Amino acid sequence: MVLQWRFWNLSTNRIKAIVAYDGTDFCGWASQAGLRTVQSTLTEAIRRVSGEEIEIVGASRTDAGAHAIGQVFHFDCSVKIPEHGWMRAINNLLPKDVAVLKVKFVSPDFHARFMARDRWYRYRICEGTRNPVEQRFSYLQWRKLDIESMQEASRGLIGRHDFRAFTAELDSWIDNTYREMRKIEISRIGKEVRIDIVGTAFMRGMMRRIAGGLMEAGLAKRSKESLHELTLKDRRNELELPVVLPAEGLMLMKVRYGRTLRDIRNEKDEDE
Amino acid sequence: MVLQWRFWNLSTNRIKAIVAYDGTDFCGWASQAGLRTVQSTLTEAIRRVSGEEIEIVGASRTDAGAHAIGQVFHFDCSVKIPEHGWMRAINNLLPKDVAVLKVKFVSPDFHARFMARDRWYRYRICEGTRNPVEQRFSYLQWRKLDIESMQEASRGLIGRHDFRAFTAELDSWIDNTYREMRKIEISRIGKEVRIDIVGTAFMRGMMRRIAGGLMEAGLAKRSKESLHELTLKDRRNELELPVVLPAEGLMLMKVRYGRTLRDIRNEKDEDE
Repeated sequence: MVLQWRFWNLSTNRIKAIVAYDGTDFCGWASQAGLRTVQSTLTEAIRRVSGEEIEIVGASRTDAGAHAIGQVFHFDCSVKIPEHGWMRAINNLLPKDVAVLKVKFVSPDFHARFMARDRWYRYRICEGTRNPVEQRFSYLQWRKLDIESMQEASRGLIGRHDFRAFTAELDSWIDNTYREMRKIEISRIGKEVRIDIVGTAFMRGMMRRIAGGLMEAGLAKRSKESLHELTLKDRRNELELPVVLPAEGLMLMKVRYGRTLRDIRNEKDEDE
Repeated sequence: MVLQWRFWNLSTNRIKAIVAYDGTDFCGWASQAGLRTVQSTLTEAIRRVSGEEIEIVGASRTDAGAHAIGQVFHFDCSVKIPEHGWMRAINNLLPKDVAVLKVKFVSPDFHARFMARDRWYRYRICEGTRNPVEQRFSYLQWRKLDIESMQEASRGLIGRHDFRAFTAELDSWIDNTYREMRKIEISRIGKEVRIDIVGTAFMRGMMRRIAGGLMEAGLAKRSKESLHELTLKDRRNELELPVVLPAEGLMLMKVRYGRTLRDIRNEKDEDE
């Protein structure tokens, strides 16, 4: 058995890749029977390159319609191809709405999902009228947003809080709903309002509900304190939940690594 | 007859509109039987709104696959709808890859094509690997471009020159191939190289062949003088023509007006 383990260890490589996709025509990241997903599209391409039954593990299970320029995944493979050759071979087999941007050999300890230290998501809201050139990756909002109110409302979410109120109902079984938001920035570039959030992990629908709450604050439909109050156990049942904005405005920008095995043992369930 | 003319004049409005489109899935601007074009899509929507057999006239006949954020067109219509109502009504009937950004009532003298003073086109080249999120509106080029060489090569095109060598063969019947390029700017934003050209008018394929020539200069495949030499009658037949870059990187940014009827009489054929 030891021999076999060593043989396996020597002959396979763990490969980390960064991938970008226009999520418009995908049913999200995670493989689902009969649906066109990013994970299944990538898996099929890599299987064709390697001739092996590989499985890929992504850092984040992005929703149907959400985009990424910095999604990360890993897989194991015994075929010997240099890093750059992998990238070209996979990209040659991918459709035009998904592409691998980087391939790197990593230690067999690396895990795309569990070792991620934090994720940076961006939600884009475009004000004004529909513009087919500028609005493929943003949510259209007719009214003008008050950026300062949004910034004030966002402050109450920074730090470690219970984000149960921001979870999709599907995830109501999750035990630990505490997550740490490390940075929230709201900026305006022309008619585009950007909500940039770096957090340790995000539950399903969480980023889109936070964006919805911030938008409501920017439209004076919600008090600046109410987002913070939604993280408090004794207040959250009295308050109206923020709207969940559509996935088209959501982009996974970057996944940062550097979490240790010890961190992982201490922080169970914070894995997306 | 006079009465009839006056009746017509009083009861119809000339309407100017600015339109944006993602040209990826259009067979260009100009209506062609059986093909999905921007002009026919807009015409159909406006006919449904007005119930009249209107015809629309665009400022530029953009190629199949080329995009616009500032295309201009006009049409005449006797239905009384306020400007903002027109915009909403048309946009409600348009598919998501085209939208009207502005509607304005103008004098019946206005002509979207003949009265345009100049057109601003942008050609985008993205260096590096394919990126589905960033490269929908740009041409992918693996090698790095030398911006300074491109800028030097562009100088010889500024001003009034004979651009016959830059015309598509289809347009070889054109008598007057002189056009005036008022401004050429080449800039880099991250991995994106932008070629911005403001010119009185552009013949078919001209902007894409200029972009190709500039790219060749940026790849050291062409001397800095050769683009200027292509405008000289006694030199152009000896030189190799620049490559025509694909339409996906081309965007009509803006059409400026202010040309008078006298200008039009003096400058025949400079109409796109």
